[in-house]
Amino acid sequence: MIYVDSLLCTPLENQRPGSRRALEEVVAGRVGAITVTVGFWEDATESMDQLVKWRKMAEANADLVEIAYSAADIRRIAAEGRCAIILGFQNVSFLQGRLGYVELFARMGIRVGQLTYNIQSDIGGSCYEPNDSGLSRYGAYVVKEMNRCGMAVDLSHVGERTTLDAIRVSEVPVAITHANPFSLAPHQRNKSDLVLDALKDNEGMIGLSVYKNIVGEYDTAQKWSELVAWTVDRIGIEKVGIGTDFDQTGGAAYLEWMRQGRWAWETQYGAGSPSNPGPTVHEGWFANPSHFPRAEECLRERGFNEGEVELIMGENWLRYYDRVFTDL
Amino acid sequence: MIYVDSLLCTPLENQRPGSRRALEEVVAGRVGAITVTVGFWEDATESMDQLVKWRKMAEANADLVEIAYSAADIRRIAAEGRCAIILGFQNVSFLQGRLGYVELFARMGIRVGQLTYNIQSDIGGSCYEPNDSGLSRYGAYVVKEMNRCGMAVDLSHVGERTTLDAIRVSEVPVAITHANPFSLAPHQRNKSDLVLDALKDNEGMIGLSVYKNIVGEYDTAQKWSELVAWTVDRIGIEKVGIGTDFDQTGGAAYLEWMRQGRWAWETQYGAGSPSNPGPTVHEGWFANPSHFPRAEECLRERGFNEGEVELIMGENWLRYYDRVFTDL
Repeated sequence: MIYVDSLLCTPLENQRPGSRRALEEVVAGRVGAITVTVGFWEDATESMDQLVKWRKMAEANADLVEIAYSAADIRRIAAEGRCAIILGFQNVSFLQGRLGYVELFARMGIRVGQLTYNIQSDIGGSCYEPNDSGLSRYGAYVVKEMNRCGMAVDLSHVGERTTLDAIRVSEVPVAITHANPFSLAPHQRNKSDLVLDALKDNEGMIGLSVYKNIVGEYDTAQKWSELVAWTVDRIGIEKVGIGTDFDQTGGAAYLEWMRQGRWAWETQYGAGSPSNPGPTVHEGWFANPSHFPRAEECLRERGFNEGEVELIMGENWLRYYDRVFTDL
Repeated sequence: MIYVDSLLCTPLENQRPGSRRALEEVVAGRVGAITVTVGFWEDATESMDQLVKWRKMAEANADLVEIAYSAADIRRIAAEGRCAIILGFQNVSFLQGRLGYVELFARMGIRVGQLTYNIQSDIGGSCYEPNDSGLSRYGAYVVKEMNRCGMAVDLSHVGERTTLDAIRVSEVPVAITHANPFSLAPHQRNKSDLVLDALKDNEGMIGLSVYKNIVGEYDTAQKWSELVAWTVDRIGIEKVGIGTDFDQTGGAAYLEWMRQGRWAWETQYGAGSPSNPGPTVHEGWFANPSHFPRAEECLRERGFNEGEVELIMGENWLRYYDRVFTDL
């Protein structure tokens, strides 16, 4: 059984303290593939500089990980007992407003792009924006170009209206790599039943998260498997996976960059709040990627059979990658 | 028999007037592959913008050309009676000082990089520089990284000392895509016997040019085939090809960008001179790519046999591409 984490937030680029230890946690959890966060606010060359650092990190830790450039790479690397790194951005600032850069970054290895992070972009509105514009005309072109270039359209932090527009425009199944159902965990970052139903029709995927700020009261193994079962009932067993949203090493400076970037001078709280400014400390049943086997266990206890557990733990994401990560 | 032009200087990117006509000349000349000039002075994002425009041009003229990403692509496209476009830069400004960008641009499709254009770079000295530094430490890293990433090291405009250093450092055969022997045509842009001998030992290639400013008195079919024969005698039949250095459409503004870029406010003459400021008008026996068959003819008249003519007209370059354009 191959485990997949559809969103790891840990900054693992070369020379970050703790990267090696974080990777060891991933491999200790028998996770065969992770979609990583190469950047949030970087422009094109800054994004390329990040890419280079991730490549150097992967080279330096080739006993544990390898960057995957295709769906076949992912299955091969996982089968070797290592972890495939799927390169993704949590924003599309790397495009720097250029439609043509979708293909160029796809060729450089980027396989996932989230249409907005926590603020409005030239593509659309974020989940925290008071007024969501919906998908812009440029945004619609970008979605179709991402479809063509085998780059997954990630809608996790995207506002509701923009999310629904993107699902409508996308000719390929979309991904919500890290979010939970709003009906169970009412947080701005989570997804309404309307979005989940649209995702079902689109044959897309959601990676259910254990991130403390968006998991609400579903923060034990028993409660979390209930959240999984609810989602499976709503959209179907083959559309549900796991996207932890863990940041294993980042700390305060990284959190500030993530939440505030260069767009504000006042403190921004992201999925936190003034009373919960973060960094988020994860404790308990699923506190880091080494605890992935506990998810398998609680799904069995919830009554999922062997095949169903395998789908949720990773096979659904692998099939999604097979379908979406086409070669140019 | 497949013809190859190892350096075409024509700006063919989308929306340039005359691009379609220029491509028709190439195909009329039965040229199966061309190494093109995507840029001279562009930084990373400007280079990527250029790449996008070249891709759009290729899409719009898919009946005539296709961008080749591998040696196999080149032979396939040529066999279809179309022309394979091999993407190259006449400078390494696209790296913007980053060693890691060699791989990123290789993944984007760049297969040829000239270490310097007409002025000194962070990599080394140009043929017009009064003092050639030789290959810098950064330059040595870049050469080895280009070797690893399947990007040909082009030394055409590079100064003598830097050229000899680069040949020594390169673990893969290098390319002089467009130049002539200095012994026959004494111009700063041309290559000394010392360089030609080093190229021979390196198993590299030279594309002999018909560009008026550097061909000297070898400007007729009969004289030019003499220049080819002399070069074959010096370095061996399997190391000689054709790199015209034609600019079919560029005109004065393009010439100014090429020669002057943003590095000078005074007029720069490149391979021209104050008495010959250009744009260069080609007339006579080999004035544009449609005249390629005339080169085949004059080589036969010079006494080369069928197999030898085939090697010089293109097969040598194709074998070079097979060897150098490795996949990452």
